[in-house]
Amino acid sequence: MRLYDYHESGNAYKVRLMLHQLDIAFECVEMDILAGETRTPEFLAINPNGRIPALVLEDGSTLVESNAILFFLAEGTDRIPNDALGRARALQWMFFEQYSHEPYIAVLRFWAFSGALERNAALVPEKRERGDAALAVMDQHLARNDFFVGGRYSIADIALFAYTHVAGEGGFDLSRTPAVEAWIERVKDQPRFIPIDRRF
Amino acid sequence: MRLYDYHESGNAYKVRLMLHQLDIAFECVEMDILAGETRTPEFLAINPNGRIPALVLEDGSTLVESNAILFFLAEGTDRIPNDALGRARALQWMFFEQYSHEPYIAVLRFWAFSGALERNAALVPEKRERGDAALAVMDQHLARNDFFVGGRYSIADIALFAYTHVAGEGGFDLSRTPAVEAWIERVKDQPRFIPIDRRF
Repeated sequence: MRLYDYHESGNAYKVRLMLHQLDIAFECVEMDILAGETRTPEFLAINPNGRIPALVLEDGSTLVESNAILFFLAEGTDRIPNDALGRARALQWMFFEQYSHEPYIAVLRFWAFSGALERNAALVPEKRERGDAALAVMDQHLARNDFFVGGRYSIADIALFAYTHVAGEGGFDLSRTPAVEAWIERVKDQPRFIPIDRRF
Repeated sequence: MRLYDYHESGNAYKVRLMLHQLDIAFECVEMDILAGETRTPEFLAINPNGRIPALVLEDGSTLVESNAILFFLAEGTDRIPNDALGRARALQWMFFEQYSHEPYIAVLRFWAFSGALERNAALVPEKRERGDAALAVMDQHLARNDFFVGGRYSIADIALFAYTHVAGEGGFDLSRTPAVEAWIERVKDQPRFIPIDRRF
C-alpha cells in the first residue's frame, strides 16, 4: 500500500498508526501541504478534494478520508466492534471527531505551527471555545469508560487520539480534562504504539 | 424509534428520509434549536454534544451523528454496498459531506434563514468558495457516475442530497454543476422519496 502523507497531519497519523499496529507494510509519500503539493493536477487526480491522507490499495484503487480508511482497515480485526450498534457507535465518535473536534483543535494547532494565528486572530476565540467543548464531551464519556466504544481500544480511539494528544500545541489545556489525559496514556500503552513524529 | 428532530435541519432530514424509505415507524420530537432547546440539561442527557438528530432505539439506547445513524439503519439493506471497499467508499463520501460540504453549504443556508448572514459577513466569502469547491468535487464524480457508490442509490447519496438540494437557499448556484442537478432529480425519483418539509 502507498500512503500520501504529511508528517505533521494528525489525519495522516491515524492511518500510519493503524497500519503499523496491524503490521501492514506501506510506503510513505510525503506531501508538503504548505507548499501546495496537494493542489497540483497530479495529486488532484489521486484525490479530487486535494487532501491527505490518501491510501492507494494493492489493486491500485485509492481511498481517502482518514476515518473511512480506518474503517476499511479495521474490518475483520478487533479494532471495531462486531455488532451493528457497536460499529455505528464507533462511527458516531468518528463523525464527532471530524465535525465537532478537528475543525477547532486541529485547526488551532495548524495555525500555530504554520504561522497563521495572527492573521486569523478574530476566529480564535470561537475555535477555542468549541474545541474546549469537544474536550469536555470526551472527558464526560471517558470518566465512565476506559475507551470510546465497546470497552476496548478501537478505531474511534485512534481517530480521537490523533489531534487530542497534541492539542497543547494549539494552546488547549488538557489538565482541565483529567479523564482525557488518563485515556491518552492508555492509548500510548497499546502494543506497537508509535508517536506522531515517527517517520516511515 | 423516537427521533429528536428539527424540521429545517438537513442532518435530521437524512434520518427522516431513510426511515420513511425503509418503512420504519418512528415518532418525531421537534426541537427548536433557535430557542436553545438542544442545550437544556434534559437534552444534553440525550446527546452531550447538544445536537440533533438523535435517534432513540427500541432498546432505549441513543445514537447520534446523522451519518452514523444512516450507517446503522442501512446494515442488512441494499442502501450500502456489501463489500468492504464499497462500505468504506460510502463512508468516504459521508466524511467528505461532514467535513468539506456541510460546514459551508449548510451553514450559509442556516445563516440565511436565521438572519445571521450580516453578522457573519466577513466569513461568507470563504464559506462560499469552499462550498463551491465541494459542489465541483461532487459534479466531477457525478459526471461519470449516476450515484456516489456502487452504481446505485445508497446512504452516501442521502447524506449528500440533504443539504445539496437546498443549497440555493444559501445562495449557491447549482446550474454551474449540471451533473449535480441531474443527480438531484435521480434521488427525487427514488421510491418513497419525501421532501425536506414533510412533517411527521
